[in-house]
Amino acid sequence: MKTVRTIDELRKLLAPQRRKTLGLVPTMGYLHRGHLSLIERAVKECDRVVVSLFVNPLQFGPGEDLERYPRDPDRDVRLAEQAGADILFAPSTAEMYPAGAQTVVRVSGLTDRLCGASRPGHFDGVATVVSKLFHIVEPDRAYFGLKDAQQVAVIQRMVEDLNFPVTIVPCPTVREEDGLAMSSRNVYLSAEDRKKAASIYRALREATRKRKTGEVSTASQAVRMIREQLEAVPGLTVEYAEVLSYPGLEPVNELRSQQVIAAVAVRLGRTRLIDNVIWPKEEGSPCSAP
Amino acid sequence: MKTVRTIDELRKLLAPQRRKTLGLVPTMGYLHRGHLSLIERAVKECDRVVVSLFVNPLQFGPGEDLERYPRDPDRDVRLAEQAGADILFAPSTAEMYPAGAQTVVRVSGLTDRLCGASRPGHFDGVATVVSKLFHIVEPDRAYFGLKDAQQVAVIQRMVEDLNFPVTIVPCPTVREEDGLAMSSRNVYLSAEDRKKAASIYRALREATRKRKTGEVSTASQAVRMIREQLEAVPGLTVEYAEVLSYPGLEPVNELRSQQVIAAVAVRLGRTRLIDNVIWPKEEGSPCSAP
Repeated sequence: MKTVRTIDELRKLLAPQRRKTLGLVPTMGYLHRGHLSLIERAVKECDRVVVSLFVNPLQFGPGEDLERYPRDPDRDVRLAEQAGADILFAPSTAEMYPAGAQTVVRVSGLTDRLCGASRPGHFDGVATVVSKLFHIVEPDRAYFGLKDAQQVAVIQRMVEDLNFPVTIVPCPTVREEDGLAMSSRNVYLSAEDRKKAASIYRALREATRKRKTGEVSTASQAVRMIREQLEAVPGLTVEYAEVLSYPGLEPVNELRSQQVIAAVAVRLGRTRLIDNVIWPKEEGSPCSAP
Repeated sequence: MKTVRTIDELRKLLAPQRRKTLGLVPTMGYLHRGHLSLIERAVKECDRVVVSLFVNPLQFGPGEDLERYPRDPDRDVRLAEQAGADILFAPSTAEMYPAGAQTVVRVSGLTDRLCGASRPGHFDGVATVVSKLFHIVEPDRAYFGLKDAQQVAVIQRMVEDLNFPVTIVPCPTVREEDGLAMSSRNVYLSAEDRKKAASIYRALREATRKRKTGEVSTASQAVRMIREQLEAVPGLTVEYAEVLSYPGLEPVNELRSQQVIAAVAVRLGRTRLIDNVIWPKEEGSPCSAP
């Protein structure tokens, strides 16, 4: 018998004969170019790629858009296949949540802020369904878009805390021509609101520029600047605009001594949109990898 | 690309080439014959067996016996090896809980009752450490003793709810000559209390007998009988004595229409002891398999 004292040593000892690398791209469907960029990256890096398509009721709060969340499964099949996916996993809600389920995975701290504050329970739903998908698919690598940067931070925390044998691959936000971050929810926007939505990234880009030039050097200056610019847009309501450390999501003051995120959530009509930029430690250029 | 709608179908499709079966026996060490019976069963059923030895601080409440919990790692190594284990995983607390961990796995409902009521947070600690061990070891089968029947129910619920690819194997309680359930904590007992401790299983066995003969036919009769018998023991305090459905742990009345558990927790001096018997549906014999 061998006695082992570290997780690394144990994993090496137990590693089965090297099997093929399996990638997972979890999605809620209604695929856009952001999703496709994740699939394409997974295809490049893995031998086999599973795309999951599941609108997860557990991560929607009461009064949120679960029912009207856009769906087009036939188009999703076509797009996932074109992007090179090998398997599309599209379970029913009953398959994922049979009656009687009582278990929740909860990441505290990180989930009190930003979208966690406005959507209580949202990240419990995310952490729980991602745990389930990891157990069902058993991927080596899982791909997530940084448009949902808080989600990426929560999942990385969960993977580390619970020792999931999965590598999380955060991928850059894909944007429309005018800078709007790709999102399945963009389809909700009226033509007029769609135009206004470009102001979100415009404000983040402007803050990024001012951080570079030194016009903005603290978190509160950055927040004020972003907020002012967004509040100037008629019909747009700011839900939050914050600058925090990333991925720890702690309050910060000075912007250059650590990696930070400038994150916003706004409402345009009935539609809630989020976006962010990540500013790396020291040198001041916007960056999408944590 | 293949589209798949059920978890079973997906798992079959993804199943890597059949590798050797890996068994896990999670323990807090200070191994006794109960633990050894789990290891021996695992050795029979698996190609390779990992025994984990970790006194999990997360499942101890403030004021509980974390510090004085009995430990004898050298003896554990010897006993595990003799029982046929292949690997002993004995991590430090820092290895299992590095600073900054924020994730908890919580099974609600089941954990409100019995030991969950007297030890708030205990089962969060159990579910969390077992999740970690499952991710670290990635066993095919994991072995748990039914002395901790509520723990078995909680873990089975968790495994089902989160789709862990692990088969839980509940194993019968191993007892001393006089019926006392094997427990690392029995070592706390004074000679006098050790003798009194035999009354716990005596009461459960007597209730089992009376259920068979029909003298006891409802949960409240069984509880009253067990409680009376225990309370007659000088110096013994009953923390709880309950008869509930098993593994659902719901209140029951009539005893024959479903599987039930008669579960007790008592204190003898500073020592807390638990025990139970499981009564299967219909025919009335004590049984340790859920």
